[in-house]
Amino acid sequence: MIATIFSSPQEAEQAFYRAFERAHIAEMMAVWAEEEDIVCIHPGGARHAGLVEVRESWRQIFASGQRLKFRLAGARTYAARTICVHSVLEHVSVVGEQRSPTPLLATNIYVLTERGWRLFLHHASPVPGGQAPEETPPSILH
Amino acid sequence: MIATIFSSPQEAEQAFYRAFERAHIAEMMAVWAEEEDIVCIHPGGARHAGLVEVRESWRQIFASGQRLKFRLAGARTYAARTICVHSVLEHVSVVGEQRSPTPLLATNIYVLTERGWRLFLHHASPVPGGQAPEETPPSILH
Repeated sequence: MIATIFSSPQEAEQAFYRAFERAHIAEMMAVWAEEEDIVCIHPGGARHAGLVEVRESWRQIFASGQRLKFRLAGARTYAARTICVHSVLEHVSVVGEQRSPTPLLATNIYVLTERGWRLFLHHASPVPGGQAPEETPPSILH
Repeated sequence: MIATIFSSPQEAEQAFYRAFERAHIAEMMAVWAEEEDIVCIHPGGARHAGLVEVRESWRQIFASGQRLKFRLAGARTYAARTICVHSVLEHVSVVGEQRSPTPLLATNIYVLTERGWRLFLHHASPVPGGQAPEETPPSILH
């Protein structure tokens, strides 16, 4: 297998969602930084930290057989020399279902490693009321 | 008012949770970077972006009169020269109530500005089952 080198955070992000849509575990793990402090939080879920836990979380998701389709919107970015933060709205559809896409909020953090840009942290959470976040009035539940 | 300069991400994080516990809006906003791309996502809530929306979200939370107490655990960190990522478990208690603390997961991103370290992004989400995340088996809901 030839390891892919992502030359920008955007390339890594495209590969992340492509691997997610394809439910392809090797492609998914090729996007992550090979560091023990990587963090992955799926919507409504616990935290998975380190390569072993993160890989297992994706294996379980992909094993469900459900195929998802993502449309991203509303990106907010903080870019530094070796790290890039993306806050994005994920509109997630289940392939083969007619329901409106589910809106989720994701914080994605990419870091520049010796092997190019990789994902260091993915934190996703549901948006209340099933509305697109742009249309949602402030809803404070802290 | 004398503006506080936080000389490390840790100092900024302490000030963030202290302002949260004190429900003090000026202290809270003094922790945030003065940038239009700042992002704040409260547990189960929509995204607030920019100083105006972020301030209003805290004003509403603090207006409830409920006082909270935070204990942090399980930090995972990525530190670069001008940015620092903290993934932390928040154990949140309501002051005056006897219930077990509620566990939440927070991604906090601090950036080095001309005025010291400031908070750029706070993304918090509930942990399923009411268990501390360390004790929670993987729960995949993506």
